[in-house]
Parts: sequence; structure tokens; C-alpha cells
Amino acid sequence: MQQASRARLLVENSPFFQAAGATAMTEVLRPSFTQLLPRGAVLFEQGDEPDFLHMLLEGSVGLQASVEGCGRTVVELFGSGELFLAPAVMLRLPYLASAVALTEVRVLMIPAEAFRDGVGRSHDLCRATTQLLARHWRLMVDQVVDLKLRSAEDRVARFVARRISEEAGAGDALLPEPRTAIAARLGMTPETLSRALAGLERKGKLQRGAGSATVADRTALVR
Amino acid sequence: MQQASRARLLVENSPFFQAAGATAMTEVLRPSFTQLLPRGAVLFEQGDEPDFLHMLLEGSVGLQASVEGCGRTVVELFGSGELFLAPAVMLRLPYLASAVALTEVRVLMIPAEAFRDGVGRSHDLCRATTQLLARHWRLMVDQVVDLKLRSAEDRVARFVARRISEEAGAGDALLPEPRTAIAARLGMTPETLSRALAGLERKGKLQRGAGSATVADRTALVR
Repeated sequence: MQQASRARLLVENSPFFQAAGATAMTEVLRPSFTQLLPRGAVLFEQGDEPDFLHMLLEGSVGLQASVEGCGRTVVELFGSGELFLAPAVMLRLPYLASAVALTEVRVLMIPAEAFRDGVGRSHDLCRATTQLLARHWRLMVDQVVDLKLRSAEDRVARFVARRISEEAGAGDALLPEPRTAIAARLGMTPETLSRALAGLERKGKLQRGAGSATVADRTALVR
Repeated sequence: MQQASRARLLVENSPFFQAAGATAMTEVLRPSFTQLLPRGAVLFEQGDEPDFLHMLLEGSVGLQASVEGCGRTVVELFGSGELFLAPAVMLRLPYLASAVALTEVRVLMIPAEAFRDGVGRSHDLCRATTQLLARHWRLMVDQVVDLKLRSAEDRVARFVARRISEEAGAGDALLPEPRTAIAARLGMTPETLSRALAGLERKGKLQRGAGSATVADRTALVR
């Protein structure tokens, strides 16, 4: 009961729920349910046809993609409040990546069919979906630019900065994901990630902690 | 008159028009107009607020992103029938990249406000937009995986293969864009691109031409 109302609150505070509105969300939420999964759990696998749209309520999920003979990488990390992967659900196409819990996660499972029906019936839900997809496209564009133009140290600095609220301008950036997952997300080896963090520490831009980094000045970090 | 009806046909055959339907498109097309622009023309600049949504009717456009002190790159190439950049238009946010005509282009200019109004009024147009954005997200995910995992030669092979219809399975892949733009799109130098094409030719996977590559077996090219 306590857990159910906590999950409810997390759902209602998500940007997608706020954009779609309570009326549009009611029907989508009726057949949905939450799951608590341990670190390492696989939510879905690359190549699967989507049965659910997932909304992460707590924790961190990595989108992991493999190419035969070339190994695997992390395409993106999603934190609490994020919906994934609406593109595969909307297009009824196999997932381009697996989703792996990088911490313990609480996740809302929205049946894919219910979501597609909802988008077909509710214009508000459809509009919220365009906002979500537009935002996610920009995340990927940002990553492509990062990979093509920025040095490892710059990429790490921007990644850490995004974990601190712009308003606060300083604080602890939580990095609960395994070092290997963060490195893969940033397109570098774990060793390069460690060197970049050490380099930023030497320059006084952050202080490394266990599963976090303390930043005194967010603006200076990304300058 | 001849030109107007040709443009009309190109618009009506675009995947977006097909998805949205003629009724939904009528109001969006009323204030829209086409432009014929020379190679090198800048359709919009990174940092600009979008005034138009662009639909490419003929030619090729490159999305070019710059980072101060780190140079510039090509985020994506768009060919005829593609709409760009709906995410910036929908979110009313500055463009993350400039759009540069890489060939002579014919482009339909849809006023951003008219498009947003249309998406707000027409559920069909809104649904077509979710399909478009979902497809574009998957393009970027594919590119991120490419950049992180695949060799230069594999990336070039897949790029060339995408320019040949899957049904045909063979034929001439048109590559009308400047070599530098294709190389930047693929996250490599022009020299690496040339070496990769030469390598693929040596393996009998393609034959280089002027602004094209002849592929005898599309499946063998990407194997």
C-alpha cells in the first residue's frame, strides 16, 4: 500500500505524465504495474518485439547494443522519470538495444498495446509523445557531436555536469552506475574514464568520491 | 506551373504526407512554399530558433554541428522526402545543428507555427509526427552504435548499402555529397574514407565511380 502510493507519486511527477495530463494517463495506467528489479536484471533484449513501454521510477538503466564480432556498448543511460523505448513501441519494431538495470530499479510496465491505443485515442497523449521523442532525439544528437568532436576529458566533464542541477550550480553528481557502463556511454575505455576524472580532479574541477563526484562550480567544470 | 505540380507530387509521395494523410496536410501546406537553393546554401544555423520546418524534395542536406575550439562535424545527412528538424520546431528550442545544402536542393518551407498549430489541431498529423521522430531516433541510435563499435570499413559499407534499395539488392549507390561531408557523417577523415572505399573495392565488394559506387551484391557488401 505504502509502496503503491509511492510509485503513484513517482509516476505523477514524471515529465511525461505532466505533459500528457492525468486524464490521458488514466487509461494507460490502468493495465500497468510496477516491478522492483535487482541490479543486472535485463528488462528487454535487443531484437525483441516490445511488449511493454517502460517508465523508470527509481534507479538507472543502460541501453546496451551488441554487434556480432564487434562487441557491445552502452547507447544511453536513463534515470528516474524517463520512458523507454517509445520509438520501438510506436513503430512495432524490434528493439535496437537491450535494457539492463545498472542499479536496483523500480519500473512501471505499460503494456505496449495499451500505450499505442492510448496514443491513437488521446491527442494529449500523442502530443506528450512527440515532446518525449523530440527530447530523446536531441540527447542522441548531443551524443553524436560529443563522440565526433570532444576530447575524453570534455565528455566526462559534461556528463558529470548534467548530474548536477543547473540552478544549484554545485553539489554531488551521483554516479551509481558501474564504471564500465559510464565509460561505454561516453565512448571510451574504463581506463580513459579514470584518467579523465583524475585529470579533472588535478585541475580542481571536481573531487572523486565512491559512486559520486563533488563539483564546486558546475559552470567552471564544463568551461 | 510545371514546377509547382512537380513539387506537389514530391510532397505527396513523401512518407510523412502518406502517414498524415491529405486532409491533415492541407492546412499545413497552405502557408508553405518551395525554394530551389544552390549547393552550399545554409538553410538554418545552429543556435537559431526555428521559423520553418523543412521538407527536402530533391537533393541532399547535411546537419553540421560546431563546438567552439573543437571544430565542426556532420551529424546526419538527409535525402529527399525527409522532414527536418521537427524536434527543434516542436520544442521551440534552438537548432543543435546548421543545415547545409550538399547538392542543389528543392525544399518545402513549412512555417513552424503552422506546423505546431497543425499538430495541436490534427491528431493524424500528431501521430505522423510521432512516427517521424521515432524513425529519426533510431537513425541516431544506429549511428551511435556504428561510431562506438564498427570499424571504418564496416561503417562505409553500411552507408553505401543504405543507398541501394533492399529489394533490388544491387545497383549504383549515389554519393552526390562532398567527400568531406560523408567522411564527417561517418566519424572519420576523408583520407580514412578513401582508404575504406579502396579496401572494399579490393575485396570486390564495390566499384568506385564519380559520385557513386557500383554494388553487385548488397548483402555481400555488409556481411
